[in-house]
Amino acid sequence: MRTDVQHFRCRVNADIAHVTLDRPERKNPLTFDSYAELRDWFRDLAYDDTVKVVIFGSNGGNFSSGGDVHDIIGPLTRMNMKELLAFTRMTGDLVKAILNCGKPVIAAVDGICVGAGAIIAMASDMRLATPEAKTAFLFTRVGLAGCDMGACAILPRIIGQGRAAELLYSGRSMSAEEGERWGFFNRLVEAGALEDEALQLAQQIAAGPNFAHMMTKTMLMQEWSMGLEQAIEAEAQAQAICMQTGDFTRAYEAFVAKERPVFEGD
Amino acid sequence: MRTDVQHFRCRVNADIAHVTLDRPERKNPLTFDSYAELRDWFRDLAYDDTVKVVIFGSNGGNFSSGGDVHDIIGPLTRMNMKELLAFTRMTGDLVKAILNCGKPVIAAVDGICVGAGAIIAMASDMRLATPEAKTAFLFTRVGLAGCDMGACAILPRIIGQGRAAELLYSGRSMSAEEGERWGFFNRLVEAGALEDEALQLAQQIAAGPNFAHMMTKTMLMQEWSMGLEQAIEAEAQAQAICMQTGDFTRAYEAFVAKERPVFEGD
Amino acid sequence: MRTDVQHFRCRVNADIAHVTLDRPERKNPLTFDSYAELRDWFRDLAYDDTVKVVIFGSNGGNFSSGGDVHDIIGPLTRMNMKELLAFTRMTGDLVKAILNCGKPVIAAVDGICVGAGAIIAMASDMRLATPEAKTAFLFTRVGLAGCDMGACAILPRIIGQGRAAELLYSGRSMSAEEGERWGFFNRLVEAGALEDEALQLAQQIAAGPNFAHMMTKTMLMQEWSMGLEQAIEAEAQAQAICMQTGDFTRAYEAFVAKERPVFEGD
Repeated sequence: MRTDVQHFRCRVNADIAHVTLDRPERKNPLTFDSYAELRDWFRDLAYDDTVKVVIFGSNGGNFSSGGDVHDIIGPLTRMNMKELLAFTRMTGDLVKAILNCGKPVIAAVDGICVGAGAIIAMASDMRLATPEAKTAFLFTRVGLAGCDMGACAILPRIIGQGRAAELLYSGRSMSAEEGERWGFFNRLVEAGALEDEALQLAQQIAAGPNFAHMMTKTMLMQEWSMGLEQAIEAEAQAQAICMQTGDFTRAYEAFVAKERPVFEGD
Repeated sequence: MRTDVQHFRCRVNADIAHVTLDRPERKNPLTFDSYAELRDWFRDLAYDDTVKVVIFGSNGGNFSSGGDVHDIIGPLTRMNMKELLAFTRMTGDLVKAILNCGKPVIAAVDGICVGAGAIIAMASDMRLATPEAKTAFLFTRVGLAGCDMGACAILPRIIGQGRAAELLYSGRSMSAEEGERWGFFNRLVEAGALEDEALQLAQQIAAGPNFAHMMTKTMLMQEWSMGLEQAIEAEAQAQAICMQTGDFTRAYEAFVAKERPVFEGD
Repeated sequence: MRTDVQHFRCRVNADIAHVTLDRPERKNPLTFDSYAELRDWFRDLAYDDTVKVVIFGSNGGNFSSGGDVHDIIGPLTRMNMKELLAFTRMTGDLVKAILNCGKPVIAAVDGICVGAGAIIAMASDMRLATPEAKTAFLFTRVGLAGCDMGACAILPRIIGQGRAAELLYSGRSMSAEEGERWGFFNRLVEAGALEDEALQLAQQIAAGPNFAHMMTKTMLMQEWSMGLEQAIEAEAQAQAICMQTGDFTRAYEAFVAKERPVFEGD
């Protein structure tokens, strides 16, 4: 997977991609360029199997301050509708690209995680955070609606409709403790341990079975608005496909031999 | 917005409508008349911008005892199917009217909140409650199903499918503490502070951006059963619309001037 | 309802069916035979009104160890796609049969509850557990995807999308305490009290109104992927049907007479 990116930071190490936003001195705002480059990077990831898991991490004690007021919001106030829709679709396409990349994404959230930053955390599959994490869907504070990049669809399914409504109407900060209690964060870890914990979880998942993980991710999305009987049939098909992978046989043979399975991803 | 209502109480003060049911000596039951008048009032609200937020409050220490046994349940036992369906559609239309009124609705729940009263709280966007709040979807206790006015669709999305199932099958009371822990109530406040807390939250939201809040409410409903990619495209369109409002520009200009934005709702 | 089953245990007592898996010495694994027989039994239950509620209980301190490695997983590794799909559809049909049986199902979970065992608990309407319950959607550990028998659709609606994702990707065990806190378990009870508590809840629900309970179960499924307005109309129709049952009149007459209603199920 390419790591020669210009507008965010990226390195790949032992099957795991580490991505963070850049400009920690400004709490890692997003810009037009980083939106577009992240979208393209996650799109490419769908076709690349050298990366098994992505950690979307923090940088300098913060996750992201969201769309930059000067670089993004200023120009948006001067755009016509065609240009505005091109922008909101680009940001939505970043979420779609994260959802469709085929690899589990773990957000490791420290400090400020607001606006489009909160959306990136929300669009990840799992989320770890430090007690200092402050997450706000603050669109309302810049005169916009809470319906940004899928928030009105996704956030209620993570923390419940009533809690999501309050966060989206008020734009208030969700504390790390609330986030854990409500199911936004899978768990909290001290700031000094955040990278290690995220890496451990990533390694565990990267150990495979990776074809099956891709299918889990696909079906979590695919079944979003299916009827219940259709979802069950869809899973019967998806799991039958997984039963023809070598990894299924490898797991069985390891079990019989009383060994740990070594998955190969096919 | 008109406040000359006959079958419930209503006043409008500084952009905020305060609604409660009437007859506190009987814990504020609903009647055929109050159902119909509430439905019409919330329907009209969709076309009225003088009200920015609604507080649906308690009265005399209770929220509502639900459909009156003598005034409603007795007559229902003697109706034919055409009449019954007209009734259940009228009650469902009240929920639809609350969902479609375009203004955030805050339920402020004290004491008894049962049957159709629990449904009104559930259909609100946010819910505050006192430690004394007792909420029961008790339809089963009067020989009916839990599927009343949208409960089988909405309640599971607020508190989770398993908890909703238990409440709907058993008809048992959910304590205030459970309600907060499960995400039904956004928070608990002492009875003496309930009105003030609800008012504060209402004022904060009424400060705007109100066009954007209307869009948030619209999209929370609109995306209920959309596919994930469709929801993201729908939000790209909805947010692009919000980016052409004056409130978006006002927020930006206030930020640049290091001032607090004053929203005007367009 | 027939209790002459070969591959699981079943008895019916005072309107309540008690079902457990068999072979407690191996923690009650599922086999091809028990899958098929359970599917048929739950399918038949839809047409039988002598059973009002089902308790799916534990046996010898454990709920179920899931699909047997030797009896099921071994043979699956040697099947062709036609055979595999026949198997995954059979397992999915068990979940569909539980969802469509028309009677509330209460899982009473002690000890090990993993793989297809965890799915049976998930497909039940309500879940009680002991502090010793260990629930794992461990498909990933045998080389498969988390999308098994409806898990990617149902589990997120019970415990939230983020928590479900972690359990499905990692295959890790959910503790009883997590399960209660996240809404998977309705409550925890000591092992010695599990059967009694499940029985009490079952008796309370079996007391009726049973036609209405069937409608509640139907609508919880039916509205899974409906739009919100459609769900409200669907409930207006479903509840109007329930208002023409004798149980509705019985409840009203008992209320007027200040007695406890005795429901008859029609």
